[in-house]
Amino acid sequence: MSAEQHTVPESAREVRLASRPSGWPTPENFDLAEAPVPRPGPGELLVRNVVMSVDPYMRGRMNAGRSYVSPFELGKPLEGGAVGRVVESQAEGVSPGDLVSHQLGWREWAVVPADRALPVPGGPEDPAPGTFLGVLGMTGLTAYVGLAEIAQQRAGDVVFVSGAAGAVGSVAGQIAALRGAARVVGSAGSPEKVRYLTEELGFDAAFDYKDGPVSEQLAEAAPDGIDVYFDNVGGDHLEAAIGAMRTGGRIAMCGAISAYNETEPPPGPRNLGLMVGRRITARGFIVGDHIDVRERFLGEVGEWVRTGRLRHRETTMSGLERAPEAFLAMLRGENIGKMLVEL
Amino acid sequence: MSAEQHTVPESAREVRLASRPSGWPTPENFDLAEAPVPRPGPGELLVRNVVMSVDPYMRGRMNAGRSYVSPFELGKPLEGGAVGRVVESQAEGVSPGDLVSHQLGWREWAVVPADRALPVPGGPEDPAPGTFLGVLGMTGLTAYVGLAEIAQQRAGDVVFVSGAAGAVGSVAGQIAALRGAARVVGSAGSPEKVRYLTEELGFDAAFDYKDGPVSEQLAEAAPDGIDVYFDNVGGDHLEAAIGAMRTGGRIAMCGAISAYNETEPPPGPRNLGLMVGRRITARGFIVGDHIDVRERFLGEVGEWVRTGRLRHRETTMSGLERAPEAFLAMLRGENIGKMLVEL
Repeated sequence: MSAEQHTVPESAREVRLASRPSGWPTPENFDLAEAPVPRPGPGELLVRNVVMSVDPYMRGRMNAGRSYVSPFELGKPLEGGAVGRVVESQAEGVSPGDLVSHQLGWREWAVVPADRALPVPGGPEDPAPGTFLGVLGMTGLTAYVGLAEIAQQRAGDVVFVSGAAGAVGSVAGQIAALRGAARVVGSAGSPEKVRYLTEELGFDAAFDYKDGPVSEQLAEAAPDGIDVYFDNVGGDHLEAAIGAMRTGGRIAMCGAISAYNETEPPPGPRNLGLMVGRRITARGFIVGDHIDVRERFLGEVGEWVRTGRLRHRETTMSGLERAPEAFLAMLRGENIGKMLVEL
Repeated sequence: MSAEQHTVPESAREVRLASRPSGWPTPENFDLAEAPVPRPGPGELLVRNVVMSVDPYMRGRMNAGRSYVSPFELGKPLEGGAVGRVVESQAEGVSPGDLVSHQLGWREWAVVPADRALPVPGGPEDPAPGTFLGVLGMTGLTAYVGLAEIAQQRAGDVVFVSGAAGAVGSVAGQIAALRGAARVVGSAGSPEKVRYLTEELGFDAAFDYKDGPVSEQLAEAAPDGIDVYFDNVGGDHLEAAIGAMRTGGRIAMCGAISAYNETEPPPGPRNLGLMVGRRITARGFIVGDHIDVRERFLGEVGEWVRTGRLRHRETTMSGLERAPEAFLAMLRGENIGKMLVEL
């Protein structure tokens, strides 16, 4: 596809935050609107978005309160990861036709400062653009940083990943195995996902957290305990993981999707006292603090993706008008792997 | 006092665990008994204990369940830190008359393997033996390790210490200030202790946790938030500390005295999700893993003690028969600083 094929329209569609959800979001919280396509200024790129992702952290930005990123503004378009093709460039080193990854998703056209756009390879041999939102994008980098930097995973560790069929979790579990874990255990929310983990992704064991108490299922799946917990969900998973931790265990706290839509804070783990005697370290992290690891990540994980040792799946919907639906489905856990919307 | 002054008796007193407490211990859980004084074998020392300490962690060892140290045995003497004078030595490098620190307290006489005894200076200019169970013993080392190694406290940090009038907490708060904290806040359980913290130990602010919600009192005492939390109590203090944490905050988890006597696990912090966005690290630790820091600790903190920059107090009872009473009083928080029993 060349730049010439894109006639820049006068206006295009974007999805705005119509109202702030209380608890679970509904379609009424979103507004699909038509807006003029902006013009790029010096140092900026006009980008036709090709694909965007919907991610759990966006739920937090829909609240008014303080979070680690500023809240979305009412009546303004939402934001999030996207890959698009440059149609006009007012920046050196970027040309029309280039693919870039950036944070102005939820809209068909975007004007992106060139210094906030990362180059994405777009050759015929390269992975599809959506891959650079998933396994080779912030999602994969999150999994890599959580394991390698935050949890300091070592060969021989027993690793437990919650939300393991999700975008981050499915990569985290596989990276753990490829980095030499003695055993990788995952939890997920349906029998189909559990099969996906053990039969397709090579997890040593997996369970459906809806089948019974997490602590009991984890004890069965990892009878000798765990060394590393990659936490995507919080709540009773975290309590179970602490209960199963061996001395010197490490917890990478990546998110707590189980609590994102609760209006009342859920009860916390009752066994934090175990962290003292077992010398457990729990550490929250945000991938944005660790962009310096991206080169090493792309080298190590990119090779596993190219050689097929690390498998990935995306769940894709088509059309910007379906982005709210995709977001809600992702929050309900209906996706396997990264949830994408093709524009 | 010379070795000659000690006639070794045939038997002496020791305090045994008579039964395992459920919830708060009572005097009936202890048994004061007479036992033959054992003879030292090769590599061992016969020690007349001079002073012993009672510490919160001992409560955990009174339970049957798994802990980070093995449980005390029913009908056997309890164990814990003590300083005593060597009366007979079957080990090279240790002579009768030397003072040593060891872990066989709760008895008047002990046979101690020389490789588990640490030398304690006993000259006329040196601090009293009990000091080497407190501010210059494992207690002070715990405070030092928790701040310097676990919480990685830096100059300019705002530091919050719970249980701040206790043995570890009172040292931790002062070390934090001497290491350049911008502000040191402590919590304690009585108006007298709060005054002790601000008027004697130089805490910048302190509050009585019984006066109202910890989160509100902490917000008032540290209106710009905290960087480091030294946790001695767990429970609502931990939740309040997480709520007050700035980005990159660090929690040293030293103990959870609030829960030691609960038969039902207390609810955990409901706000652990904040650890992700705020990049908080929480790390449990046991001082025994960090004995390699002792030399540096004795140099740095020893100097502060000698020059009077670091103040310390002990609460002392006399006579082995009062050791259970001292232990119970310590659990109820009636001591200020280290709780000792002179034998």
